[in-house]
Amino acid sequence: MDAQEKHKIKSQKMKEKVDARVAQAQIEKGLLLVITGNGKGKSTSGFGTVVRCVGHGYKAAVVQFIKGKWESGERNLLEQYGVPFAVMGTGFTWNTQDRAGDIEAATRVWQQAKAFLADPQYHLVLLDELTYMLGYDYLDKEEVLSALKNRPENQSVIVTGRGAIRELRDMADTVSEIKEEKHAFKAGIKARKGVDW
Amino acid sequence: MDAQEKHKIKSQKMKEKVDARVAQAQIEKGLLLVITGNGKGKSTSGFGTVVRCVGHGYKAAVVQFIKGKWESGERNLLEQYGVPFAVMGTGFTWNTQDRAGDIEAATRVWQQAKAFLADPQYHLVLLDELTYMLGYDYLDKEEVLSALKNRPENQSVIVTGRGAIRELRDMADTVSEIKEEKHAFKAGIKARKGVDW
Repeated sequence: MDAQEKHKIKSQKMKEKVDARVAQAQIEKGLLLVITGNGKGKSTSGFGTVVRCVGHGYKAAVVQFIKGKWESGERNLLEQYGVPFAVMGTGFTWNTQDRAGDIEAATRVWQQAKAFLADPQYHLVLLDELTYMLGYDYLDKEEVLSALKNRPENQSVIVTGRGAIRELRDMADTVSEIKEEKHAFKAGIKARKGVDW
Repeated sequence: MDAQEKHKIKSQKMKEKVDARVAQAQIEKGLLLVITGNGKGKSTSGFGTVVRCVGHGYKAAVVQFIKGKWESGERNLLEQYGVPFAVMGTGFTWNTQDRAGDIEAATRVWQQAKAFLADPQYHLVLLDELTYMLGYDYLDKEEVLSALKNRPENQSVIVTGRGAIRELRDMADTVSEIKEEKHAFKAGIKARKGVDW
């Protein structure tokens, strides 16, 4: 038996396995995805999914917690497609150094998030860096979890950020943990426009 | 000292640390990012970075290995922005069951990848699912590594896919390993249009 034949037999077995699993996966509903961990790629993965969604003609909304007033490539492009952005606009907590002000800003942007999470016209809502708002107790955990739980049945939600709390992971349909194996920044390479921001 | 003051002091210390690290990171060059692991979010992270890049007015190119002929939300949208897509178009190897045909298709699409990797007008090149081509020996490892190494100095490249080989991780500036903690598909939930594809 040559390599080509071996490959064919192995592939057939793989195909049977995959087909069986695809046949089993028949529940249709909006998903809650949590992308957490200390590695690079969490927010970009969220934005990549927003592009996928909008590219199919569905509506998506973006809420950015933390995020400051700096320019953002993804926002420049996606706003042209009618994707609404709600941005906390304060920047990193170590720059603001103002806990009360941060909580106020978080609470304000959360009101917009809640409105998206109650609106069935949105096929996908990205809650970028929401995990920190829960980790720092800037937002009420019960209120956030309840808004996620009671969202429209067909709406998917992506939550990104380090250190997702246990309750969020438990509620999620998919959880990815991005581990940093190596990071350019730590080797003295400057954050790059069009790649890192 | 109240919580607000404590927060301020902690934040100041954090800011000093971060500022020192930002000051140290002064090397400017194109990056090689590898996003690997078995979890969800690798390709979407690549596409999110392409959006970021294009949103700043830079040129980006996408090469999709494996990827079949099915419709893709990200392609629908990004082609409107002049992002060229080179797509292998064969689909999963367990579906084609044809090793020789897959190698031929991989080699064909690799020619387009090589052209992008030699063209300084591209600020970013996404090589989606390239890892499998190396893992299956569909492409010559030395040729791929050499094209990556000799690319224009200011060009960034993102390679996605499970099981990135050691040589690729060693060459990369940033490596993220996405671990699957939980996946909706395994709980019987169907892949969702606008989210999973």
